[in-house]
Formats: sequence, C-alpha cells, structure tokens
Amino acid sequence: MSGLRKLSLSLAVAALVLGGLPWGASGGSMLAARAETASPPAATKTSDRMPSDAQAADPLPSWRDGRTKQAILDFVARVTKQGGPDYVPPAERIAVFDNDGTLWAEKPVYFQAQFALDEIARKAKENPALARQEPYRSVLAKDLKALAADNHKGLLQALAVTHANMTTEEFASRVQNWLKTARHPVTKRPYTEMVYQPQLELLALLDKAGFRTFIVSGGGVEFMRAFADKVYGVPPERVVGSSGVVTFRMGKNGKPELYKTAKVEFVDDGPGKPVGINRFIGRRPILAFGNSDGDLQMLQYVTGGPGPRLGLLVHHTDGAREWAYDRKSPVGRLDKALDEAPARGWTVVDMKQDWKEVYPPAP
Amino acid sequence: MSGLRKLSLSLAVAALVLGGLPWGASGGSMLAARAETASPPAATKTSDRMPSDAQAADPLPSWRDGRTKQAILDFVARVTKQGGPDYVPPAERIAVFDNDGTLWAEKPVYFQAQFALDEIARKAKENPALARQEPYRSVLAKDLKALAADNHKGLLQALAVTHANMTTEEFASRVQNWLKTARHPVTKRPYTEMVYQPQLELLALLDKAGFRTFIVSGGGVEFMRAFADKVYGVPPERVVGSSGVVTFRMGKNGKPELYKTAKVEFVDDGPGKPVGINRFIGRRPILAFGNSDGDLQMLQYVTGGPGPRLGLLVHHTDGAREWAYDRKSPVGRLDKALDEAPARGWTVVDMKQDWKEVYPPAP
Repeated sequence: MSGLRKLSLSLAVAALVLGGLPWGASGGSMLAARAETASPPAATKTSDRMPSDAQAADPLPSWRDGRTKQAILDFVARVTKQGGPDYVPPAERIAVFDNDGTLWAEKPVYFQAQFALDEIARKAKENPALARQEPYRSVLAKDLKALAADNHKGLLQALAVTHANMTTEEFASRVQNWLKTARHPVTKRPYTEMVYQPQLELLALLDKAGFRTFIVSGGGVEFMRAFADKVYGVPPERVVGSSGVVTFRMGKNGKPELYKTAKVEFVDDGPGKPVGINRFIGRRPILAFGNSDGDLQMLQYVTGGPGPRLGLLVHHTDGAREWAYDRKSPVGRLDKALDEAPARGWTVVDMKQDWKEVYPPAP
Repeated sequence: MSGLRKLSLSLAVAALVLGGLPWGASGGSMLAARAETASPPAATKTSDRMPSDAQAADPLPSWRDGRTKQAILDFVARVTKQGGPDYVPPAERIAVFDNDGTLWAEKPVYFQAQFALDEIARKAKENPALARQEPYRSVLAKDLKALAADNHKGLLQALAVTHANMTTEEFASRVQNWLKTARHPVTKRPYTEMVYQPQLELLALLDKAGFRTFIVSGGGVEFMRAFADKVYGVPPERVVGSSGVVTFRMGKNGKPELYKTAKVEFVDDGPGKPVGINRFIGRRPILAFGNSDGDLQMLQYVTGGPGPRLGLLVHHTDGAREWAYDRKSPVGRLDKALDEAPARGWTVVDMKQDWKEVYPPAP
C-alpha cells in the first residue's frame, strides 16, 4: 500500500468517525450542537405505545400502513412462500443494514465521533497534564484548524488515542462504559435509545421469517459490536464495519491478547460495502437497507442479483421528531442514491410519513 | 503497506497455496506424487459403515472409545448443562476448525495447490499458445528453479492466473467444476471425499448442541466457500480464510460485480488466525481444532480465555489409511504446537488410534 493510499484510507476513516463535527466556520457549542431542524422527539402517549388487539397481529406496528410498509410485508411473504415463484431458501435469506442513520440516528454528529470527543475529555480530566498536549489541546479548544493542519495529523491522532493502543477487550469496555453514562446532546437520551423503533420491529420480523440480518456500516466494527447484540439482537459475527489493524501478542500477564493499532485496514463505505459483504458474508444478500450515498454501491450490488430483491433507503424527512436532511448534509448525505432509487426500484422510506414512532418508548 | 511487506505477504500466500509442491531436488511426477508413507485407504466393509442399534445412539461412531472421544463428549456435556458450573449460553458456543489437515487431507500437496496446477494445465490445453508463455511453461515443465527466480515471480504469476482477474462468481464456478472432475492422485477419490468422517460427525454433534462452527484456515476464503456448505454444512458466512483484494465495479453487462485482483490482502495463518477470528467472528471461540503449527496461536488464543475451553490437534499418525507426518513435513508441520500441547491441556488426536474410520464411505 502506498503512503498516499494509506493516508487517504486514514483520512477516510477519520472522516467517517470524526466527520460532520459541528466545527465549521460558524463555530458553536460542540456538545450542545443542534442540527438545523432538530428538535427533541415529541412525548409519546403511553396509549400510543401499547398495541391494541388489532395491532398485536401487526409485526410492524410502528410503520404506518401504506405503500412502503406493504412493499416490505409483500417481499417477506413472497420469499418465504414455499412453492411460490419467488421462494428463497432460508440459507439465502440474508439482509444487510447500514447502521448510522438507518438503525440509529447520526445527528448532530456520528455517535462514534461523540464517543471520541467524550473520551478525550474524560482522559484529560483524569490526567490534566494531557490537556496541554496534542491532540487533546486542540480537541478541547475545538481548534479545527490546528487539527486539520499537516495533513489532518491532529484528527488522526484524536482517532488513535481513543481507538488504538489498547486491547480489543479494553476498547469494548470503554465503549460500554461510555454508552452507560453518555447522553445525546439534543434529546438527552442514552445513545442506545436513539435507535429507530420501526427498524427494531423489522429486524425482529426478518429474524422470525428465517432471515439472517447483518449490519454493514462505515462505522468501526469494534465500536458497533460493543452494543449491537444487546440493542439490535445482531451478534458480533454478523457485524461488518471499518477496522484498524489488530495484532496478536502475549500480554504482560502471559495471556494471549489482541491489540488495536492506529493503522487503518479496511473502510467499509461506498464501494467498500459490497467488498465487505463478499469478504465477511460470502454471498449476495437479498435485502439491503441504507440511508445515504455511502450505501449506493451496496444497494446496487444487492438489488443487481437475480431473483427477488428489496432495496430500501431511509429518507430523513422528519425535522420535528428527528432531523430533516438529504442532499446537502455533511453527515449521511443522500443525493445520488435518491436519484437512482426510482430507476432501480428501491423503496424510499419517508420517515415523517411512514413511521408512526421514531424511537422506542423510554424504558 | 511497504513493497517489502507486500511481497512477503504475497509469498506467504504463495507458500500457503502452492506450498509443499513435490518439486524438490528429487523431482518425481507431480500428479502422481505420493508422500513418503501414503497409501490408499483400505476398503471399508459396508457392514462397518451401517450403524447398529447400539451405535445409533453414539453421536461419534467413527471415533474409537477412549480418552480423546471422552474429552470431546465431556466438554460438550459440560457447556450445555443448564445450571451447571461450566454452562455456556448458546450465543457463545463458537467452535473454530482449521481446514487443511484438520477437516480434509492435505497430502501430497494442499488441494488448493493441486487446483492451481490443474487449472494451468486446463487453460494451456484450451489455448495451446499459453504453453509457451510464463508461468504456464515453467509449471508444465515442473521447472521450480524458473518459478522461484526473481523473487518467486513465476509462483506468484501462477497464483494470479488461477485465482485472480476474474469475478468472484467465475472463480467459484471454476472451483466447483474442478471438484466435479478432479481426482486425488493417490486415492483416486474426488477431493470432496477426502474429508474426515470423524470430523463430519463432530461438526454435526456441535451443531446439534447449539454451537456455531466456523472454518478458520490459511486456505483461500473464496476457494473454501465454493464447497464448505455442501461438504461440511458450514455456510459461506462462517468461513474465514486468506484473501486477495476484491474490487467492486460495473460489469460489461451493466451489472455490478466483484472482481478478484492478484493483490494479497490477508493471510489467515499463524498469528493471523486469532486476528481473523477477531475480525470475522468478533468474539473468542470456546473450542479450536487444528493440526499444525499454523494453528498454534489460534489454540493459544481460544484456550487462553476464561471458562471452559477445549483445544484439539489432529496428529497424523496413520501411514496406512492416511499419511504419517509431523515435525518435519513441509505441509502441515506439527512441531511447536505438539510441544505446547501437554502444558496447555490440549487434546492430541492420534489418528491411527482414535479414528475408527478416516474417510466417509464412497457414496
């Protein structure tokens, strides 16, 4: 791999992980940043949440009746109907879901970016001497110019100090600790409650229908695995994501361990998604769900195969309950994929119209 | 990645794929090569194969009663006993198996190497002009010196012309076509019948006991996926192996496709095995089965975790029914791992003693 290629890979990951930070020309508070149209989700009446008898039979109660919901239910019915023309054996019922913006929210910044920022703040608090060093100083001062200087050296350092130079087990426990206490800057809910209730229902429906659901995301694979099983019911072996180089070594205690380095290994975004699907899953899924141009090639690949296929895109249209953004958003830009959707027969989910609920009820 | 690192990775894969070719100083026929102690498996009486009523209750009828078989049965009983001190929830019951020499034979050369040789012969037959070009000329002439010259340029070319510059689908169909017609040079059986019957029974037993079995092998992942589901019942998403870089592109027919390049991406051998386990599975298995020093770190990692663990090694001791080799074999060398086995509590399977049958009965 050339130095240039290495750098561009590193920057791609930095952009994925730290991208969309609200550190633009306008400045503004990092932690309290709000996207242009964001507002906390409206309080949900308990009565809305409790399924009536009629709803109990509905596997997708948080999806409003309409063409979108029907497209999903029809597809599942067709591929599971034994003897039908579109029957797909269970082994081939593979469904892939993007994570950020598809299974959970991604505003005002990718949650993994927020984790990196919070970790830097936590470490500087524990060890105040750090605050005078880079990249801590620049991150704490929100000095984007300094972080971007010298080929984004500071940004890459920020990624390294929060995601590398520790064992995979240490990293997982840091993510889990963060998830326990961190709150979303806008909704004040734990990040694990910023998942989309309609998608949880869809994952459960597919599971029941004999599908194996995978996450295929540009986010870090070790980051997602720290919560995907508990939150989505998707076990670690069904999470595909971007990764850094991990090395095997004998730890100080004489026990073998896996150590995370800062070297980028794989960027699971854009054309990397079908590549990741091939590498990790080894066969072409029949259903793909994304929300941004980073999912374009994944949808092309999945729906480009023979037999029944379903391509879906979440269109973030709900500025009241969530955020409204598409072609111009630095995070989760949906532009080319939105243009291609009609010709390729992809179903575009209008969040405002199609989702009765956005988030799960508070526990 | 530095040029040197790239080369050494490429050579590692060439060694894995083409390694152990019987092209040493002694020369000898390539296709009819026999390892030192090899002999065709003895004919098996039909009556031996049909389980009696007593055997029907035995999940491992091809394993002879004894300490090895008991260690396996005890382990499975302990981790599945609800409420017992060693109970492991189904989600964590992950078992990893090496392939060459553990699930199927690897003599006289790795079967994937034989595939490469046969493919070169097939292509040269289809297009005789190729026979005058490299690497075809040197392979057909068994000119190891020419293939090794200039940093093994010829060997890497041989790997490239048989494993790259085609879509993943084309490659899978070439492997499948080869498996249909190719016969093992010694036993004259299809390669897919050179699998170990006791291991097929163990895979089935683990599956029944709620385990998810994975293959974790130095062999090429696309090569193994072409038959693992059919032969072992291990689906593509549970096969981890070495891989080359695959790129996404739009094919000539306007359909998206995945194209195999000759660039090496990942070598799933030695310390690469625990790294591959982390990358693809995302959690530490509780059972690992290997047969060579290439499995050393995998066994260290798997048995180095807390709770009940089982490490197993096939020791190829059966020169009559299979092959007898260990510390000095260029293919499947078992030396360091054999030394470490007693201290680490790994169970060493003595093929001659422990396996009542080696191969499945002819269909």
